[in-house]
Amino acid sequence: MRMYDVITKKRDGEALTKEEIDFFVEEYTKGNIPDYQASALCMAVFFQDMTKEERAHLTMAMVNSGDTIDLSSIEGIKVDKHSTGGVGDTTTLVLAPLVASLDVPVAKMSGRGLGHTGGTIDKLESVAGFHVEIEKDEFIKLVNENKVSVIGQSGNLTPADKKLYGLRDVTATVNSIPLIASSIMSKKIAAGADAIVLDVKTGAGAFMKNEKDSRELAQAMVSIGNEVGRNTMAVISDMNQPLGYAIGNALEVQEAIDTLKGEGPEDLTELCLTLGSQMVVLGNQADSLEEAREKLRENINNGKALEKFRTFLKSQGGDDQVAEDPAKLPQAKYKIELPAQESGYVSGMVADEIGKAAMHLGAGRATKESQIDLAVGLILNKKIGDYVQSGESLVTIHTNNEYVDEVKELLYANIQIQKEKVEKPKLIRDIL
Amino acid sequence: MRMYDVITKKRDGEALTKEEIDFFVEEYTKGNIPDYQASALCMAVFFQDMTKEERAHLTMAMVNSGDTIDLSSIEGIKVDKHSTGGVGDTTTLVLAPLVASLDVPVAKMSGRGLGHTGGTIDKLESVAGFHVEIEKDEFIKLVNENKVSVIGQSGNLTPADKKLYGLRDVTATVNSIPLIASSIMSKKIAAGADAIVLDVKTGAGAFMKNEKDSRELAQAMVSIGNEVGRNTMAVISDMNQPLGYAIGNALEVQEAIDTLKGEGPEDLTELCLTLGSQMVVLGNQADSLEEAREKLRENINNGKALEKFRTFLKSQGGDDQVAEDPAKLPQAKYKIELPAQESGYVSGMVADEIGKAAMHLGAGRATKESQIDLAVGLILNKKIGDYVQSGESLVTIHTNNEYVDEVKELLYANIQIQKEKVEKPKLIRDIL
Repeated sequence: MRMYDVITKKRDGEALTKEEIDFFVEEYTKGNIPDYQASALCMAVFFQDMTKEERAHLTMAMVNSGDTIDLSSIEGIKVDKHSTGGVGDTTTLVLAPLVASLDVPVAKMSGRGLGHTGGTIDKLESVAGFHVEIEKDEFIKLVNENKVSVIGQSGNLTPADKKLYGLRDVTATVNSIPLIASSIMSKKIAAGADAIVLDVKTGAGAFMKNEKDSRELAQAMVSIGNEVGRNTMAVISDMNQPLGYAIGNALEVQEAIDTLKGEGPEDLTELCLTLGSQMVVLGNQADSLEEAREKLRENINNGKALEKFRTFLKSQGGDDQVAEDPAKLPQAKYKIELPAQESGYVSGMVADEIGKAAMHLGAGRATKESQIDLAVGLILNKKIGDYVQSGESLVTIHTNNEYVDEVKELLYANIQIQKEKVEKPKLIRDIL
Repeated sequence: MRMYDVITKKRDGEALTKEEIDFFVEEYTKGNIPDYQASALCMAVFFQDMTKEERAHLTMAMVNSGDTIDLSSIEGIKVDKHSTGGVGDTTTLVLAPLVASLDVPVAKMSGRGLGHTGGTIDKLESVAGFHVEIEKDEFIKLVNENKVSVIGQSGNLTPADKKLYGLRDVTATVNSIPLIASSIMSKKIAAGADAIVLDVKTGAGAFMKNEKDSRELAQAMVSIGNEVGRNTMAVISDMNQPLGYAIGNALEVQEAIDTLKGEGPEDLTELCLTLGSQMVVLGNQADSLEEAREKLRENINNGKALEKFRTFLKSQGGDDQVAEDPAKLPQAKYKIELPAQESGYVSGMVADEIGKAAMHLGAGRATKESQIDLAVGLILNKKIGDYVQSGESLVTIHTNNEYVDEVKELLYANIQIQKEKVEKPKLIRDIL
């Protein structure tokens, strides 16, 4: 088999066979196919797309390119959740204990990564004593006992995807639905998921800027999942403004606790109930989304969800007192208000720019070497559709450095206020 | 400027600016842009095409990537001719003296190259004593005196094109009209052409297999030429069967002599008159194609064309007696006939396969290191549309090795005979 012929075939709009896709992924990972041929193929895929069979083959070829996590000794259906980026996304912190409280096992491998805030692990480390350095056997034991555990990612998962993504990133071929979909799905499957729930963000703060593309990506991933025997559901949710009020590590843990108590932001709660219902159904703990939602609400109201969070924190060395006493979480030295410069309705909050403001404070990593400040971040006091009086606080800036003019400027530039009334944006755009 | 943005722009169907194209060509030639970005761009061009302005900019950027030949000290308009491949193409040998006999200066830099037969220089070296090792000053003097000289190519012409072509060749991006057109045109312009006549072959033996693609390529090149101030005309000619009767080096020189005497094959003569007329018009030695053709015919009939060929050969040390005495050319030891295995009309002669048969005999180079045998080759005794009796010779094989079973087999496999009468194919498909 020659890579030249594989490129030509795709260029001319034909579907590649499993053998051709395996050949490309294997030999590219080994370094036997040069980058310049791989980038030509990616660009051909950008224009000619891939059939659902090709996408499934590509996904599994990338899964098979490296280590895979075997979670078979965990009882039950392991349902994993994935969000396609976004700002202030506290859903994982809420969902892990919430669905575990209904006996859906959550065996999560998570990363730290780059971004506006830290990853799930960074956020959890805001809780004193909490650690993720747990051996695989202990991890499995914890999930079997408590239904929830989070550890750091180890092993060489989907090296083909890593290498290919690096190449796509410099050859303008990232933005291709079949390539994005297979990249995401391969990582979830390699990490051991039996079933997958996807939260595809749409809007200015998301990777997919419009709803049509977001729906196409969601459908592509659901189709791959079903094609490779992993039941998959998806939600398309708004990311024109940050989710919830908190953007920061300890701040998001606090918000998660509030939400598990039934006192969280309306949008975050709604998204967690929607995604959680899908997870509970896929985890076989309810027959319908309605039944699952009912059970989730019940466990928020009766305290079981919060109790599960405390158990989870304790099981990994964390101080579960944070659930009752927010002061136990790291606190920033200064709380600086951002007063509205005029009265009116908030009409825009550019999510990714507001995320950048949080990163400037130290909430996230700009490079792998950056140190995260777990205490800092932003609390949004107003969101799109809210009325604000001139002088009233739009955002509370939690910072350890009192000179935040630059951050304020960035926030002002990305929060629009207008005289006319503004509709609150619809959070859940679609459920697949 | 970032190459990533250049790729994205082209991928999204926008036209690149002159600055962007110059940036790509310059930096790629220097090695500052990696192959994997260049191949992604080429694939994007494959799908998104280029405007006529982009094609012109790309052509000139490749011209400017290396040395260019300055022919300004030669009087008159230097008209160059280019054929897009083909088999048994003796046109250059005929055209050079033919148009020179009408005072159109022919200052030709030619190569040896790979192929079914040698290049123009190899063919001319069949003439005893003929040599191309001539200094640049002497070359210019010869063209000013005789209107015709041929030397070997020297200097580092269009290195960008060489590098890019090498990459396209392994990434399935050769077959793109804007890239092919700019590649060909850049080489002609770097070699000093003021005006260009193009012979775009079409059919089984040509690079472009169908007439639509051939016309598109021809139009693309004419448009580039006019865009960059080089008057350009083009002919689209049939290459479903070899041109003329001879395929081989000395054999084609003999055929050229016959044609210059007015005794050559009908198709070769017609193509030379068509291309020659364009050259004469572009060289300002006639006002119309009709007038030019009339003058060319006249110089064939009055012997001036052949006389010019003798002058040309002599001026570069060649034995001009070959014009009268074919025996002075290298002769193969054996002449082996290929008898028709049935009676009927010749309906097919797969040009490139018949070319390969000539190469097997030693007429062309398979690799750069191959030695050419100038004496060997094929003389076609029948062409498409001709009637042949069973046992009558289809081809005469001129060879220095009497064991030619393989060559015979290849020829039989690629010459079709049928009972029903066959139309002779139309040679000149279009004139642009």
